[in-house]
This record gives sequence, C-alpha cells and structure tokens, in this order.
Amino acid sequence: MFYHDNKLQYPVRVETPDPRFARLLQQAIGGVEGEVRVCLQYLFQAFGARGPVKYRDMLMTTGTEEIGHIQMLATAVALNLETAPAQEQEAAAMANPAVAAVMGGMDPRQYLSAGMAALCSDANGVPFDGSHVYASGNLAADMYANVTAEATGRALACRLFELTDDPGMKDMLRFLIARDTMHQQQWLAVIEELGGIQANLPIPNSFDQSQELGEVSYDFFATGVAGTEPPQGRWSAGPSLDGRGEFRVRTATPMGDEPRLAPPLPTGYAQLEQMAAGPLRGATGLGDTTVVTTEQ
Amino acid sequence: MFYHDNKLQYPVRVETPDPRFARLLQQAIGGVEGEVRVCLQYLFQAFGARGPVKYRDMLMTTGTEEIGHIQMLATAVALNLETAPAQEQEAAAMANPAVAAVMGGMDPRQYLSAGMAALCSDANGVPFDGSHVYASGNLAADMYANVTAEATGRALACRLFELTDDPGMKDMLRFLIARDTMHQQQWLAVIEELGGIQANLPIPNSFDQSQELGEVSYDFFATGVAGTEPPQGRWSAGPSLDGRGEFRVRTATPMGDEPRLAPPLPTGYAQLEQMAAGPLRGATGLGDTTVVTTEQ
Amino acid sequence: MFYHDNKLQYPVRVETPDPRFARLLQQAIGGVEGEVRVCLQYLFQAFGARGPVKYRDMLMTTGTEEIGHIQMLATAVALNLETAPAQEQEAAAMANPAVAAVMGGMDPRQYLSAGMAALCSDANGVPFDGSHVYASGNLAADMYANVTAEATGRALACRLFELTDDPGMKDMLRFLIARDTMHQQQWLAVIEELGGIQANLPIPNSFDQSQELGEVSYDFFATGVAGTEPPQGRWSAGPSLDGRGEFRVRTATPMGDEPRLAPPLPTGYAQLEQMAAGPLRGATGLGDTTVVTTEQ
Amino acid sequence: MFYHDNKLQYPVRVETPDPRFARLLQQAIGGVEGEVRVCLQYLFQAFGARGPVKYRDMLMTTGTEEIGHIQMLATAVALNLETAPAQEQEAAAMANPAVAAVMGGMDPRQYLSAGMAALCSDANGVPFDGSHVYASGNLAADMYANVTAEATGRALACRLFELTDDPGMKDMLRFLIARDTMHQQQWLAVIEELGGIQANLPIPNSFDQSQELGEVSYDFFATGVAGTEPPQGRWSAGPSLDGRGEFRVRTATPMGDEPRLAPPLPTGYAQLEQMAAGPLRGATGLGDTTVVTTEQ
Amino acid sequence: MFYHDNKLQYPVRVETPDPRFARLLQQAIGGVEGEVRVCLQYLFQAFGARGPVKYRDMLMTTGTEEIGHIQMLATAVALNLETAPAQEQEAAAMANPAVAAVMGGMDPRQYLSAGMAALCSDANGVPFDGSHVYASGNLAADMYANVTAEATGRALACRLFELTDDPGMKDMLRFLIARDTMHQQQWLAVIEELGGIQANLPIPNSFDQSQELGEVSYDFFATGVAGTEPPQGRWSAGPSLDGRGEFRVRTATPMGDEPRLAPPLPTGYAQLEQMAAGPLRGATGLGDTTVVTTEQ
Amino acid sequence: MFYHDNKLQYPVRVETPDPRFARLLQQAIGGVEGEVRVCLQYLFQAFGARGPVKYRDMLMTTGTEEIGHIQMLATAVALNLETAPAQEQEAAAMANPAVAAVMGGMDPRQYLSAGMAALCSDANGVPFDGSHVYASGNLAADMYANVTAEATGRALACRLFELTDDPGMKDMLRFLIARDTMHQQQWLAVIEELGGIQANLPIPNSFDQSQELGEVSYDFFATGVAGTEPPQGRWSAGPSLDGRGEFRVRTATPMGDEPRLAPPLPTGYAQLEQMAAGPLRGATGLGDTTVVTTEQ
Repeated sequence: MFYHDNKLQYPVRVETPDPRFARLLQQAIGGVEGEVRVCLQYLFQAFGARGPVKYRDMLMTTGTEEIGHIQMLATAVALNLETAPAQEQEAAAMANPAVAAVMGGMDPRQYLSAGMAALCSDANGVPFDGSHVYASGNLAADMYANVTAEATGRALACRLFELTDDPGMKDMLRFLIARDTMHQQQWLAVIEELGGIQANLPIPNSFDQSQELGEVSYDFFATGVAGTEPPQGRWSAGPSLDGRGEFRVRTATPMGDEPRLAPPLPTGYAQLEQMAAGPLRGATGLGDTTVVTTEQ
Repeated sequence: MFYHDNKLQYPVRVETPDPRFARLLQQAIGGVEGEVRVCLQYLFQAFGARGPVKYRDMLMTTGTEEIGHIQMLATAVALNLETAPAQEQEAAAMANPAVAAVMGGMDPRQYLSAGMAALCSDANGVPFDGSHVYASGNLAADMYANVTAEATGRALACRLFELTDDPGMKDMLRFLIARDTMHQQQWLAVIEELGGIQANLPIPNSFDQSQELGEVSYDFFATGVAGTEPPQGRWSAGPSLDGRGEFRVRTATPMGDEPRLAPPLPTGYAQLEQMAAGPLRGATGLGDTTVVTTEQ
Repeated sequence: MFYHDNKLQYPVRVETPDPRFARLLQQAIGGVEGEVRVCLQYLFQAFGARGPVKYRDMLMTTGTEEIGHIQMLATAVALNLETAPAQEQEAAAMANPAVAAVMGGMDPRQYLSAGMAALCSDANGVPFDGSHVYASGNLAADMYANVTAEATGRALACRLFELTDDPGMKDMLRFLIARDTMHQQQWLAVIEELGGIQANLPIPNSFDQSQELGEVSYDFFATGVAGTEPPQGRWSAGPSLDGRGEFRVRTATPMGDEPRLAPPLPTGYAQLEQMAAGPLRGATGLGDTTVVTTEQ
Repeated sequence: MFYHDNKLQYPVRVETPDPRFARLLQQAIGGVEGEVRVCLQYLFQAFGARGPVKYRDMLMTTGTEEIGHIQMLATAVALNLETAPAQEQEAAAMANPAVAAVMGGMDPRQYLSAGMAALCSDANGVPFDGSHVYASGNLAADMYANVTAEATGRALACRLFELTDDPGMKDMLRFLIARDTMHQQQWLAVIEELGGIQANLPIPNSFDQSQELGEVSYDFFATGVAGTEPPQGRWSAGPSLDGRGEFRVRTATPMGDEPRLAPPLPTGYAQLEQMAAGPLRGATGLGDTTVVTTEQ
Repeated sequence: MFYHDNKLQYPVRVETPDPRFARLLQQAIGGVEGEVRVCLQYLFQAFGARGPVKYRDMLMTTGTEEIGHIQMLATAVALNLETAPAQEQEAAAMANPAVAAVMGGMDPRQYLSAGMAALCSDANGVPFDGSHVYASGNLAADMYANVTAEATGRALACRLFELTDDPGMKDMLRFLIARDTMHQQQWLAVIEELGGIQANLPIPNSFDQSQELGEVSYDFFATGVAGTEPPQGRWSAGPSLDGRGEFRVRTATPMGDEPRLAPPLPTGYAQLEQMAAGPLRGATGLGDTTVVTTEQ
Repeated sequence: MFYHDNKLQYPVRVETPDPRFARLLQQAIGGVEGEVRVCLQYLFQAFGARGPVKYRDMLMTTGTEEIGHIQMLATAVALNLETAPAQEQEAAAMANPAVAAVMGGMDPRQYLSAGMAALCSDANGVPFDGSHVYASGNLAADMYANVTAEATGRALACRLFELTDDPGMKDMLRFLIARDTMHQQQWLAVIEELGGIQANLPIPNSFDQSQELGEVSYDFFATGVAGTEPPQGRWSAGPSLDGRGEFRVRTATPMGDEPRLAPPLPTGYAQLEQMAAGPLRGATGLGDTTVVTTEQ
C-alpha cells in the first residue's frame, strides 16, 4: 500500500509565470511520454508481476517515485498560471485570465475546466489514455517498453528545457532529466541481469523456436520495386543478434496466392449485385465479369 | 510511393472456421501490439526521418511489408467467419450468424458493422488509436519503441498460436512469429550500428549532460517506508550502463518543500469559502484553520 | 427549441427478454451507425446550416424524429434486461443478473454501471464518439454522409432483424428499417433538388476547377506492379460522371522525387549519430554511409 | 511525495479462481466508477488545490489510499486468472487459457496483452480515460463529483458482490464497500463544513448572482407538448433550496427568434446552390425558395 | 417522442464576432461540462428510469430543454465565426478565415471540417465522449452526478462570462447561468424528496449494510508517513452523516500481507528467466535471488 | 502484398516554411477527412470484399495510392517545420522552435513528441481513430461512405488551399484536389455500374422489403409543433427515388404508448425509495405519488 507526505520530491519554483509553458508541461503529465503513463505502467507491471519478486519490488519502488513527478509537474502548471504575486492579483485587472487563455496560447481548459490548474491530458488537451499502460507479462518486453517511455520522456523533457528561460523551471527539468537518465539504465540493467540482449532474443524466449518458420526468421525482405536498392546495414548481413542465424536480404515476392473469400452470406445484407456475382475469379472461368455483364 | 499485387505475402488457410478466433485475431490487427500500429509507426518514422537515409529506407521497406501483414490477418478473420464451404452455405439455416455472434464469443460488430469481415479495432472492439504510432524524431528512442512493438507483438502471436488448433492458422502464425523474430533484431541492429547501448545512453545523447542534475543521475531512489528493503540488482550498485557513473541506492526523502499555490483568482470561480481562506499554512501563522473558524 | 410527450413514436414490446440481444441493440444506439449519431449529425447540420432554410428545417425535423428512435431502442434494451415478470422477480433467485452478465453474453456494464439499462455506447461497450457527427458546411457532402449513415444503419437493423425471434423486437425493427428506407431517399432527394449528381460534382462545386491539376482529374492510377492487371469498369473509360472529362487508366509512376528533409535541428534532440550524418543522399556523393563510417 | 510498502491494505484471497469475474473486476479498476479514476481525481484535486490546505491534505490522504485499492483489485484480477494451484498448473493441460479466454467470458486481452494480469481498462476492455478526472478548481463542485464517484463506485461494488460466491472476493468487497461508505460522507462533510447545502448554492457561489437572469433562476420549464402534465415535486413549488427564490412551473415557449446565419462564405466551399440562395427567410421576402426556383 | 419549432429558447446575439470565443464556446457544447453531455445524461436516465415515473418525467422534461441549449450554443459559435455583416463579406478580402484560423486562436476545424460552424467537440477539439453520460440506475447517485454536471457547467459558464465583452454573448450566458442555478437545485430537491441526505446514505441504501466491514465504515485512514499530521475536519470526528457511526482517524497500516502470484503459466510466454525463478519470496527461503544466481 | 519505391507520387515543395500550416495539414493526415482514414478504409473494404473481385481490386488499387498521399502530406509537414535552409540553421539562434511552438500556432507535439515531423493525428492533435474506417460488407453503402470521405476530403483540401500562399503547397494541393475529383466519381461509377441509384435503393437491397413496415417507408414525419410548417421539397411529394412509393408528409404523433419498465431489481441496487414505489403510473391508480407520500 501507499503513503505520502506533504512535500515535493524536488523544489518547484516559477519566477515568471508563463501560461503558454503551462500548456506545454501538460505533455509531461498526461501525454504518451508523460508521468501518469510511466507511473501507472510501472505500477501495473508490479501488480501483475510473476516470477522473481525483486523485479516487482523495483517496479513498485520506481512507480511510487513517479507519482511524485506527476505532483511536481502539476504544481509547475498551477504556478505558471499565477500571473502575478498574490498581493498584486487582487488589484490587477481581472481580464488577465481571458487574455491568457485566448491570446497567450494557453490550454483554455486549464481555466475553463480546472480554474487555473493542471488537467489529466496532454499538450493538446487530449485526455490521458490507459491503453498506453503497457504490462505484457513478459519482463523483457516490458523493460523495452519502459526504456522507450524513459527515452521519449527524456527527449520531451530536453525539448521543454529549450522552451523556457525560467530558472525555476530549468532547475526542475534538470532533476527530471537526470531521473530519466537513471531510469533508462535501470530497465536495461534488468535485461543485462537476465542474461543480456542475446539470451533474451527472440522475445518471448520461452516459445519453442522450432515452431516458427525458421527460413524467414533472419531475412530482410526488400519490398522495393525493381530499381529500388535495399538498404544495407547490420541487419542485412552477418550473424543475427541472437546468435542463431545469419541475416540476409531477400526480394519480397508473394508466397501466397490471391485471397479467396466466399460470396456474401444472404444474411450479411450485401447488395444483390454482390451476391449474384457467382464464384471467385479463376474458380469458374467466369469470375468477376458476371456482374458487369448483367448490370450494364 | 506504393504498389501492390493481388497476392498474399504468405498463404492464409483456414480449415475449420472459428468465429471466436476471428475475434482474437483482431488484437493482431487493430490492437496496441497489432499490425496497423507497426505499419503506421514504421511509415511515419520513415516519412519524418532526418539523418542518414539508410534508416529511412529500411523503415519504409519494413513498413511496406507490414501492410501485407494487415492483409493476411484481415483475410484470416474473414475466412474464420465463413462457417461452411460455399455450397453448403446456401443450403444451411441462416440462423448461423446469429448463433455465432451471440453465443460463440465472436465480436458482434464483425457481423453487425462489417457483414462478416475484419474491423480496424482490437479483440475487445476498441478502435485502433493513432496515438500509439510512436515517431519521436530520435532514432534510438524509436528503435526501442519498435523493439517493444515487435516483442509484445510476438508474445501476442505466440499466445494466439496457443489458442488455435487449425493447421492453416498455425502455419500463418509460424510465419508471422518468424517475422517478428527478424524485426526485433533488425531494430536492435540499428542500435548496434549507432555504436551500441553505451554510446547511445542516455537517450537523447545529444543533450549536454552537464546540464542535468548529475547527482541523481545514477541513484535508485528507495521509496519504501521504513522496514521495506530496497530491491537489490544490477541497478543498485556497480558502474552505470553508460559508463559515466556508479549506481547507488538512496533513501527517497523530499528535497522540496510543501507546494504553495496562490489563493484562487476571483475569476476562477472557486467557492467563496475557498477564497476567504487567506494565505497559506505557515505564511501567516493562521493558515488553513481560518475557514474552519468562520464556517463552523 | 424542443418539446416532448411521454409516449413512444412506435410501440416497443419484448415478449421474451434476451440480455444478449440487449447487448446487440447497443450498436443501434451508440455505434457509428446508431441513432445517437444520426440524431446529433442532423441536428448539428441544422444548427450550422447556411443557405436555404428549407434544408435546415428538414434536418431539424428529422433530427428531432431520431431522438425518439434513441428512446425506443433504449426502452428495448431495458425491456430485454427484465428477465421475468415483476411478480416473479421478487421470488426468483437473485443470481439471475450474474448469470446473465457473465454467461449470457450481455454487456456487463448494462448491469454494473447502469443497473439494467442502456448505455451511450456500442455493442462492444465502446462509448459514443462525437467525431462521427459529420457536418461539413457543404450540403452535398453532408447529404452523402447522411445516406451513408442511413445505409449502414439499415444494414445494421436488417442484421439485428436476423438475430431475434421476438415478435415485439421484429415489429420494432420493421418500423426502424422502414424509416431508414425513407431517410436514405430523403437525403438523395436533396441532391436531386440541387441539380442532380452531375451538377453537384465535384464536391465542393464552388471551387474554381481550373485551379486543380486537371490532367489527373479523371485518371485511374493503376498501382499494381508489373503483371497486375488494372481492374476495368465504369471508372476506367468513358465520360466522367461530371461530364467534364474522360476516364482513363494510367500506370502509377512517381512524378515526384525522393523527399529530402533537412538534418535534425540541434534542439530536436535526435541522436548525435543522426545529426552527424551530413547532407542527404546524392547531395554530397557520400550518401547514407557517412554515419557508419564516421561513427564507428 | 509518495512511499510504499510491499503489503496490501487489506487481504486479497481467491479460493476458486474465476476468469469471468476477473473481467468484471476490470470495471472497478479502469471504469468510470473505478479506482484509477478516483485515485487520480483526488490527487489532481489536491495538486491544484487553492484555498485552505486542510482540504488539499485530505484529498492527498485519500488519493493515496486509493492507489492501494488499485493494487488490491489488480491483485484480485491476477489471482482469478490462476486456474489452479501452482503445483497443479505444471501438470495440467495448457489448453486452459484458450478455453478461459474464448469460452469463459474472460477479457481476452488479459491473456493476449497482459499474460494473465489486469489491464488499465474497464469490463469491456475500453481503456481508462483521463477526461473522467474531474478537478474543477471549485471545492463544492469537486465534492459533489467525488460523492458521485463514490456513490456509483459503491453501487458497482455492491453489484460485483452479487456476482461472486467466492469467500475471499466477498471479503475484499466488504472492505471496499465500507470504504466507499466512509468516502461518500467524507466529501459531504466538506460541504457541511463550508456552510451546508444552502450556503454553497448556487455553485459557484462566488459569481455575482445579480448578473444572472434571475427571472428564470427558479423556474421549472415544462417542455411537454399540450396534454403533457408537468411532473410535480419539491422542484415545482415552494422555496428554492438556496433560500433566495420560489420554485414555479412555467410552460416552455421560445423567448428567442429563428436563428439567422449569414450565407456561406465563398471560402467556406459550400455547394454553389447553397451560396446562391440569397438572404434568409423573411429578410427579403424571397427567402429559401430562391434555390428551388433556380434549381428545378 | 420529441417535437421542435424553429425558434431559440432564448435570443442569441453577437455584436462583434470573435472566432476565438467560438472556440471557447465549444467547451459548453461538447466538453465534459457541456450541453450534449447533460442532454444525453438526463435523457438516458429518463429512458432507463425504474421506480416512480415522476422522476422519469422530470428528467425527460429537462433533458428536452437541454437540446435547445445545444442549439443556442451552436448558433452562438456560428455567429461568432461571421467576421463581418453579410454585405461586407462579399467585398472583404477572403484571407479572413485563414487569419482567423491560424492567427486568432480559433479551432481550425471549425473552418476546415465544418465550414464555419460548431463541432461536437470541446474547446481543444476533443470529440464528445459518450462515457460521460452517467445513468447508474440509482436515483441518488444520478442526482449527485447531475448536480456535479450543473455545478461544473455553471462554473464553466461563469468563466466564459469573464472572457467576453460582447453584450449579446453576456446576455445569453446570463440565461444559461440562471438555468444552471435552477437545475442544481432541481436535482438536490429530489434528494430532499427522497428523505434527505441522511436517509439516502450510504448510496445505494438498498445494500444490507451489515454485509460491509463496518469497522472501517467511518474511519479516516491517515496515509501520511510519520510526521505528517492528518488533516482535521468534520470528517475526522463526530457523528457520521448517516447517523449510524462516529468518524475517527486511524493510521493507515497494512491489514493484508504481501501479494503472492503464481509463477507465469508456460503458455503466458513470459521470459524463461521469469519462469525459472521458482516460488515466491519467503515460500522457500531462497526467494527472488534464484534468478540472479543462475543468470549471472 | 505491397511494394514501394523511394519517390513521391507528386512533388512536395515548400518555399517558405510555415509551422502554422504544418498544424493545419495534420487534418489531412489524421483527421476524419484525412488520408490515413481513406487509405485504411479502402484497404479494409478490399481485404473483406466478397462478390465480384473487380471491386476488390479497384479498392486495393486506390487504397495503395492513398498510402502515397499520407507520405506526401507527412513530408509537407516536415518541410513546413524547417524554419530555415540547412546552412542557416546551425548558425541561427536555437530559440526558433520555442517561438514556433508556442507563439506561432504550431501543434506543440510536432516538436515535443516528434522532433519536427508529422503525427498520426488531426489539426487539434486528436489521434487518428480507427472507428472511422467504414467497411460495411455492403458495396453500395461503402461506395457512399467513400464518396463522403472524398467530398469532405476535397472540401478540406480546398480550404487548406485558401490558407496558404506558398507556391509549392498550392501545387501539391492542386494535385490532391484533382485526385479527390477522380475518386468521388470512381465510387459513384460503381453505383452506376451496379444499376444506378434506383436499383440500389433501399440499401441493402437484399432485404425482403415486404418485411418492413411499408406504410411509413415514404413518409416525411413532421415533428414540428403546431404552427411549424413542414419544409417542402423533393422529399415531401412525388414518386420515391426507388420508384416503389410516393413521398408524403405526415404529422408525427405517437403510435406507441408510454414505456413501462419493471421496478428496479433488488440486485440492481437502486435507492430503497425507488424500489418502494410500487407499480407504474396508471397500473394501480396510485402511481408515482407513492414515494412522496411515504417519504415526506
């Protein structure tokens, strides 16, 4: 279970409130790279963890840290929406929020729906979406999902760092960027501990690989039409990364035939002309011209 | 630009149609681990690729292959919804679809909305969601996103493999599982080609790391309350994976203070009692008891 | 503005309640082909109608009728969830809802969230989505959108008709199917009144067509690779439907060149290896191998 | 900031795992009445709280408790998906998950996407949606939102209680139902502390009520057509609940006129026939018949 | 069933069209606090109402009124997008919409998708979402949901009132704010009529309260870590609001133990290393270190 | 299956990059009228096509063309985000993206999430939604859906044409507008080939029309209250468009009675007062006043 205190994990200061930056910070709260996502992702991975409990405990530990990051960013949003020190606010013209909302590039719902506070949505006001909470039950897959979340999350934080000159905001982002640095490596450390990249491939490594169609397991299928050179690289030649095969380039050609679906079921309520069409092309020699003949 | 022929990349056969399996296959079409997602993800990464064109070309190539995977799976859905050979269908009682839809665990919309064909949605009928198309502009982040997609996608395909006894479906899945094997390594090969894990950390590696708060860059913050042992592992001691620091465990304690937001703006339309509260706790010595005093 | 009475537009009777059918009916309420959608679609088209008010009035009239269709279907859902006459209910074992919910293929949220009543969602429990409310500001485009809604809506109603044996439900569907018959023609009648198909093409017909690239306005681009016959039909030869051109088939070949994006911005936080890549393929004669050479 | 230990707030036991119940429990996790929602709702209200900090602290306290409820329910889902004691599992035929997934009414994604664990979605597999996190900046509005969440949440828990015979699950639900009992009153206690219902109406009570159109502030508009009796009740006569007016019933009649929109802008790309229509009905005496005349 | 006339419930005038305000008004149409939501919410509650019909009739009555509010607001949007009187429009440069759309903070889809009219979405362009239509089957829960909708809706209207200087818009909002005043009390009046707050607690009051874990029904669990004072208030001491207990504060401590999930199923396709881990911590005395030992 | 080359179907040039236009172009990528939608819509219709294969082939052909349109538009977005020639970029102040993102009306996620590239979402940042992929299994319904997509798509392209002065962008749009011209007629040509409008009505024309309630199949129900003139037009008199009936206007009056739902189930957990209400109005003569009497 969970506990809290009333303090922030790291100081959140805003020297010059900027409602536009409050909008941008929303991406780090409710966006696909945001803190609500990583928080719930790590916690759901922990809640469903099967296997060694050390990984569950680690996920729970860091998931708990992330709740505090949501708090920091939500606080940062609220502070950026305070357009003046408290004593000035009473005196100042109350047209401020209107101007901020409409002219300043603020998310208008931070005022209209939240009364000058953070929302559980991204920088475009799109609500957080629980389908981004990845918890696959496969530890290696989840670790790569977590690396992705922290890599895109750190890219986001670096870009936000570019978009503000406020010393307080830069300081907060310095902390968050550093935490993303740690968390990327934390998840990759699990891969290493599980035996490293090679031992974990292909993911899941618990599927009996003799069951897969081995002849295409290390082929780079070149789908370019004639005259299009297939791109060469580590993936096109040499030993595969799992040490079990050799990469090669192969021109993509159909191994299958034309798909043949049955005519529409009467109860499918296609148009009569579809149903009158008779069998598929090639099957009878009449094929798809039936309709044209009778319809035109 | 793009071209097609009328054939399938690999044969799709269904010996014993199973409308329930048609529902499950939807996850591999429109689910977060599905083919619509990887197809669009690789294509959008290609369309926006900056830097060496070989990576763009590779993404475009494999993105193009994935369109054909959508086609294979949609064909498999349609074939699983054909409850009998064509000649029998006309004779058979037309109550079939009803029974299939309601009793058999089929996605009812495959009949109601699509007349016995695939939808652009997942195994629960939730529509495909473009926010899962990750294309961050950072090649390493994108490669990890792609590994994740192929790892969860292969886990999905393996699980589907368990859920069918149909030889045709098993054959198709053997092909798709093998392709996921290749694609996982293809994206990791890019990481290797870019210098390997260490050289790419932290992602993005183009941010001046002296700007981040280095003192917390390699700390595992233990958020457990007293008596909760922090989980030990590769992440808690030893050199960091980027070779620039040492992991260590640190008890999480607040570095920040209590957040202090200004009172509600008059135009924020809080309740009067909120606005009457006066300054924040500690700031005046009266703090949050003001309201209680006047309200009770 | 709007008014109501307490009666139904058409009788809704259920002789043998069927919780499974209650789930299927949800598609006709909150699905993309459902009544909430057409109701809001016609009303929003009316509310934003510019031009002759007769069309606005007609849209408002039929939009108002559709509110009553939502009511009928929601009533049908509620009645299908009443598993027994009232006097029996008190006596019967209260395990009924559980069995219905879990075993019977019912939408569990009709019980869990609504206490045995209709939801504003589709047959898979996906909530109604306002983005399906099409109101483009172009009358012809809107009329085709409305024909589509009524065509897919009538197909849905016909399929539901197959899935029930209840005389009351069949009677209600006979009414709704007939109304869809009318509404399809109602919207096509507007096209006819506006001058017919030809006069309204291309939609919008208010754009100065000399501005478009006329040389491709009537070409069927054949994207099949060599050996793939382009499909022939009314669209491949003969006068165009707007009477201004001739259809023809043309092999699709690129008119454009390879896209050339600038290297990543420093502030874009790509990986260093992407940024070091130098100019694009062809521009320097070194092309895409630069990175590999210089980075490794 | 936040902390955790590795224990559950209350024991979660499952004597007879039931994958169908695992699906239903999802509603209490990721549904609109679920724990993810209340957890985030209370935390976001706390993070953005302005005014007396005691309310912030209370929201933070209970928001923190709710994280533990997510954990309990996710654990309950995982346990319900364990179809046999551990030692039996190895021996048992591995066809179990397939049967469970397809035949048993389980959410297939609990297996396909999560490997037998909970998802961040509802009982129909619809992902949690951050737009349900209400934090309006108005304390009274938020308290009513919280009462609603706990009232619908308790109704959900009571309905789940009906749907299981498992002693462990019933025990867990007894705890959660009791907590909902407390939380409903906790939020209403804030209303009382703020002065009670009357003092807080209308919400927000900080808007200068002389600005609203007082003559309709206490009218029940009867929208029934002639012959439809307006429903009588506490709302149709007697003093208003805020003590500032008298309820009365008033027949709804339009106070406004017909809306008159300008003709389509040329750049709006309506159809020519819409734009040719000339002015609005009544404005010129020609009105909406113009088009018909020229088009037919 | 439903009826309409061609007039507005209340006049909608715009003296100085403001495309930016047209965007903000969208929140009152398709936002979570908007009129589409309350309209459908009251109607769905009416359509599924069980029990005394007077409440159904009242819900139907007010739901019908709300359709007219959508109409008023959609008209207001359209009028705010008319950048000049009709006669000037033909003469004026047609660059207006572009400027309005891009520079002016307008929702670009009001032009791009709707040709200068309202959309069924919120102020950020997020489509209306049917999951906000609450109709729980429990009258008290629904009434609190309705109070919440009208409280947040009135806060929204008051905030919009701040954001416009247009006399016509202010006049329309005066009407809508007054209606929200009425509707808040209308729903609370039902609670009063049902016996008042106490008689209705806990919601649902039809669950046999002896079944819940009474010992925690009136406890405020303090989740703060040591040193964090639990917030005191009406909720922490004194009689409970339902008159059946006494509030008290209790330090939150785990009543449950560590959750113990079974190892991954073989068919769950976890990583081999997860499956090799053996039993859970404590169960064998070896616990979670097994993997590390064997893997490193 | 599918193939590609590395060129664009048509040149994409941007002379003066405009980040604001990059945002607007998103509507043509991931919006409901956008290219991702038509691409997937035509491909899913092809993948599930039953009946004459010529239509499948045509859908596949044009669906393949549309992938190239996504590519063109994504390239256009990326080019519009390049604020200066490559050589200048290195020198220029890096504040550019910030200014662009916040001040310029750009979609901030094009920078924050994509590093200056296109997203799979619309002009408001709302992700592409697979529920807009219509493939009904009925060819006529699908053709009208496709006409709608191309009609609204062409309106969108025309409106975008108004919003740019860039010669390169105008040239690209001239091409896309012309293709929409073709595609509208292509789908209507199928209707013609299937026998024309009349032969295809009502859609589906495979439902035995004697089963529908013929007496309302050609009635325009006038829902206006007394004094509201029903709008006259092609739909109110004369032969129906399917040649099987006569249009007529009919005043809408209820054919049904008041809906009568059973009292709440005990396990539905309504409030006690709802359940105590006794039978429905009229059934006993006591009706809905029971509660009031006993509760007050």
